[in-house]
Amino acid sequence: VNESPIAVFDSGVGGLTVFREVQRLLPNEHLLYFGDTARLPYGNKSSETIVRYALKSAHFLCNEGIKLLVVACHTASACALPALQGALSIPVLGVIQPGVDLLLSTTQTRRVAVLGTKSTIESGIYQALLSSKVELFPIACPLFVPIVEEQFFDHEIALLTAEHYLHSLRSTEIDAALLACTHYPLLRHTIQKVLGSQIAIVESAAACAQQVQKLLWTKQLFNQQGPAFSRFYTTDRLSHLTSIATTFLGKDVQTICVNLD
Amino acid sequence: VNESPIAVFDSGVGGLTVFREVQRLLPNEHLLYFGDTARLPYGNKSSETIVRYALKSAHFLCNEGIKLLVVACHTASACALPALQGALSIPVLGVIQPGVDLLLSTTQTRRVAVLGTKSTIESGIYQALLSSKVELFPIACPLFVPIVEEQFFDHEIALLTAEHYLHSLRSTEIDAALLACTHYPLLRHTIQKVLGSQIAIVESAAACAQQVQKLLWTKQLFNQQGPAFSRFYTTDRLSHLTSIATTFLGKDVQTICVNLD
Repeated sequence: VNESPIAVFDSGVGGLTVFREVQRLLPNEHLLYFGDTARLPYGNKSSETIVRYALKSAHFLCNEGIKLLVVACHTASACALPALQGALSIPVLGVIQPGVDLLLSTTQTRRVAVLGTKSTIESGIYQALLSSKVELFPIACPLFVPIVEEQFFDHEIALLTAEHYLHSLRSTEIDAALLACTHYPLLRHTIQKVLGSQIAIVESAAACAQQVQKLLWTKQLFNQQGPAFSRFYTTDRLSHLTSIATTFLGKDVQTICVNLD
Repeated sequence: VNESPIAVFDSGVGGLTVFREVQRLLPNEHLLYFGDTARLPYGNKSSETIVRYALKSAHFLCNEGIKLLVVACHTASACALPALQGALSIPVLGVIQPGVDLLLSTTQTRRVAVLGTKSTIESGIYQALLSSKVELFPIACPLFVPIVEEQFFDHEIALLTAEHYLHSLRSTEIDAALLACTHYPLLRHTIQKVLGSQIAIVESAAACAQQVQKLLWTKQLFNQQGPAFSRFYTTDRLSHLTSIATTFLGKDVQTICVNLD
């Protein structure tokens, strides 16, 4: 039993999907959310830079006394998970493996697509984890994140962009696609429309929360005391995080701005 | 006479338009280009964060012994010019005033538009400089920068996005529009198509280079020795800057990566 908080870390607001699933599944756990909004996006930067930013954010969170770090950003999970696990004395979970497991349990044809940022796809991690098991079609979709940030969810611009990135998948006979970026579930309807209704679209947030639960039980880190608190940090003041988190989580959220430079 | 280099500073590659104009106009001047690619984009971050990043970049460049700093990024010019001028002992020029002067000398109806990033428009600087002189229609176009970075220049996605941001200008009877972001000239054809051929579209790069020339003569800082060198710095290794600069400037460019964290 451990009453310390769990931290959910992302470059921006996308990790709130993971935060919400963890909160649903583990209502007694104290939770910190950290959005590195002064340095976002991570998705088009180098591994070295992403590792540096992730380590700074993680050290700040460790100083806040967390018992577990959840890396909710696919790019940071793809590029920085081993560095974080090597540098920290607490357990660190990412979103890559939960998504891979879910994708493998979903496909029947063994032909699947993974959609992610440029840095995530170029990291080669999905190729390394999946290529021996399935026929994999990895696709980088750089414009999806700014489109989500502009809230063009069911807009014609989103549809045209999804057509541009995904039309080549039509001839591949895939039966499942993983949304390997926390922003992409907000374009789910548009992506489904382009891929067709027979393709199963999966995402990693709920699967990641289940791994968090499993790890707390395995390591006897769970918290049985209530009521649980949650705190929200950003690295830039000007951030949609406050309003998005309030809308998304359905309660009034205050954010604390910290300067990690 | 001063043989020290001039620095052109931007968050990414957009400032190369200013760099090229300065190089054309002042072929004897040594030039440094600095793209803060590890922290880009600036356009959706807070003034405080932009000031912090601009000061770090400027201090690095001052240690390289520059005689003049040209802030080629409109967002950094809008948010950080006074802070840079206060902190540095060398002259600092931005791209806001040259663009404003050009816009005022272009319009006849005194009804103009300014297109920029969210941070540039929200800084209120164009409103402060122009509102007493013209009827101003300022428009933030957040998706233009990622569209340029995806090189969707004459693509249907660019056209649809430009329609979305600019259709309201059709009823305003403007006769001139300023592209107040160094990325936007790459979407010039698309923007012209949406605004109509009767609207004059102006940009600040050449006007800024002329102000650089004027300042060098006024302060007797020009260099008459040749041949001039140029050097290119980025803060992130993974950057299009090398290939884009090589294409854009028509010569082989090597970039040096510096870590300012």
